[in-house]
Amino acid sequence: MLSIGTIVMGAADVRRAADFWGRALGYVPRDGEVDDDWTVLVPAGGSGPGLALGRSTTPVQKHPRVHLDLYAADAAEQEAEVARLLSLGAVRVDWDSYPEDPDFVVLADPEGNRFCVIDTAHG
Amino acid sequence: MLSIGTIVMGAADVRRAADFWGRALGYVPRDGEVDDDWTVLVPAGGSGPGLALGRSTTPVQKHPRVHLDLYAADAAEQEAEVARLLSLGAVRVDWDSYPEDPDFVVLADPEGNRFCVIDTAHG
Repeated sequence: MLSIGTIVMGAADVRRAADFWGRALGYVPRDGEVDDDWTVLVPAGGSGPGLALGRSTTPVQKHPRVHLDLYAADAAEQEAEVARLLSLGAVRVDWDSYPEDPDFVVLADPEGNRFCVIDTAHG
Repeated sequence: MLSIGTIVMGAADVRRAADFWGRALGYVPRDGEVDDDWTVLVPAGGSGPGLALGRSTTPVQKHPRVHLDLYAADAAEQEAEVARLLSLGAVRVDWDSYPEDPDFVVLADPEGNRFCVIDTAHG
């Protein structure tokens, strides 16, 4: 049966993107090294889908057609992880579509790819 | 630690997208039902990331900034799974950037979202 192998994200700088996402998720290069054009990251321990970075000139969309939701266990972890991601080079997005009392925070990676950090314990 | 919880894909018709992806991956609605605006699918058995469908008017990109790679075990499974996905409503994309002897086939789901089916045994 087919499985979701990797999520592929575009990057102007694949090495920078791989460094960010490796630290963000605890992932390591699958083939032991990072390539300038294409790198697949996999969990350093345990299971989970891969994350691939590919050199791309396709622009980031303001409301991305496809994006990642990262899961945090609760509001405290969400807050701590958002702070950690910002320290790694993510930026906070001035998202124009937050509902009241959102369970998610919108960030962008150093390449501009927008993603969310979810408080999965949110009521 | 953060984890990749879900990949979120846009859809004009969330029910149609959820039906396609449920059959494609053997996934079921996490909350037992499909919503018109937002539905999270999870593996019916075993583990793996979720796949969320959200109503979106953001256009599909010709060379998507973010996309899914689905893994098949070998060339035979890749061929069989591509045929199965086409029968479920996927369409073959006239991809303009195939290398010689590619390990991937580019398809689009019924919403136009482009994704690849990978022969992971490819040399």
